[in-house]
Amino acid sequence: MTHDGFALWFTGLSGAGKSTIAVGIATRLKAAGAKVEVLDGDEVRTHLSRGLGFSREDRDTNVRRLGFVGELLARNGVIAIVAAISPYRDTRDEVKQRVGNFVEVFVECPIEVLVERDPKGLYKRAIAGELANFTGISDPYEPPLRPDVVIHSERESVEESCSRVWSELERRNLIRL
Amino acid sequence: MTHDGFALWFTGLSGAGKSTIAVGIATRLKAAGAKVEVLDGDEVRTHLSRGLGFSREDRDTNVRRLGFVGELLARNGVIAIVAAISPYRDTRDEVKQRVGNFVEVFVECPIEVLVERDPKGLYKRAIAGELANFTGISDPYEPPLRPDVVIHSERESVEESCSRVWSELERRNLIRL
Repeated sequence: MTHDGFALWFTGLSGAGKSTIAVGIATRLKAAGAKVEVLDGDEVRTHLSRGLGFSREDRDTNVRRLGFVGELLARNGVIAIVAAISPYRDTRDEVKQRVGNFVEVFVECPIEVLVERDPKGLYKRAIAGELANFTGISDPYEPPLRPDVVIHSERESVEESCSRVWSELERRNLIRL
Repeated sequence: MTHDGFALWFTGLSGAGKSTIAVGIATRLKAAGAKVEVLDGDEVRTHLSRGLGFSREDRDTNVRRLGFVGELLARNGVIAIVAAISPYRDTRDEVKQRVGNFVEVFVECPIEVLVERDPKGLYKRAIAGELANFTGISDPYEPPLRPDVVIHSERESVEESCSRVWSELERRNLIRL
């Protein structure tokens, strides 16, 4: 396969499935011979943003750093897959402008489903008031107005989601078989 | 030209000429068609490390972040050129281990020459006690024990320095004409 360098950016609430789908599509792309890096928001926090918290300013700084690294990779022909809550529309749009080749995937899942799943018990703690600045409960999430792909993770399989993202990448001629 | 992905790391005191030589070699490599990114310590501080200071811990964090980004680029076939004081030997060696394909260039210049040049007046201020944690004056610099290239910037031209770095890259078969 041949491909351009671009950023594939997954935004959505905690637990919606961003990382799972990101890893799924990365695995497919790698199997097809693509150059791929996955930048997971949580993971990257330990490398690039240790010490940052969850205030708007700190979240924006983290998102901008992911964007900066994504841009470096994308302009050198690498597919940079980012999975990060990235709750603020303006900041995502700023990164999108900067990177240029940017595909925004909104991983949507109703909050009541997330509260029920809640494998790490984070929503429970946030609802109990024990976690400040928890996106969707005690902190805002601004959904994209015109995302390139919307994933409904509560009613589609990871396979289906990955296929839909893949189709969008083909449609835009970012990947070529 | 063909080339591997690797990190080309310039270490040395402030004002020794790291950025100048880094840009010089980057220009030559780009002209030959290579994929190159220059990560300048000062510049990257604004993108990746805003808020960090000049304590040992903060300097190390900055160097590790440069190493992290350098590694991402290098393993995707890009030449990542880093120019950063990176004063601590252990931290440089840690990054070297992690990146693997790593060429260390020590840009050496006697401190008395730097104090005399001092275009930004930083050494003067550090000597006057106005700048804490200034490498070489009020903060340590640990020179590499076995650098791959040593540049003597007080007695060789930028052209000569670039040629010597280029030769080392060819010798190690990292770049191939």
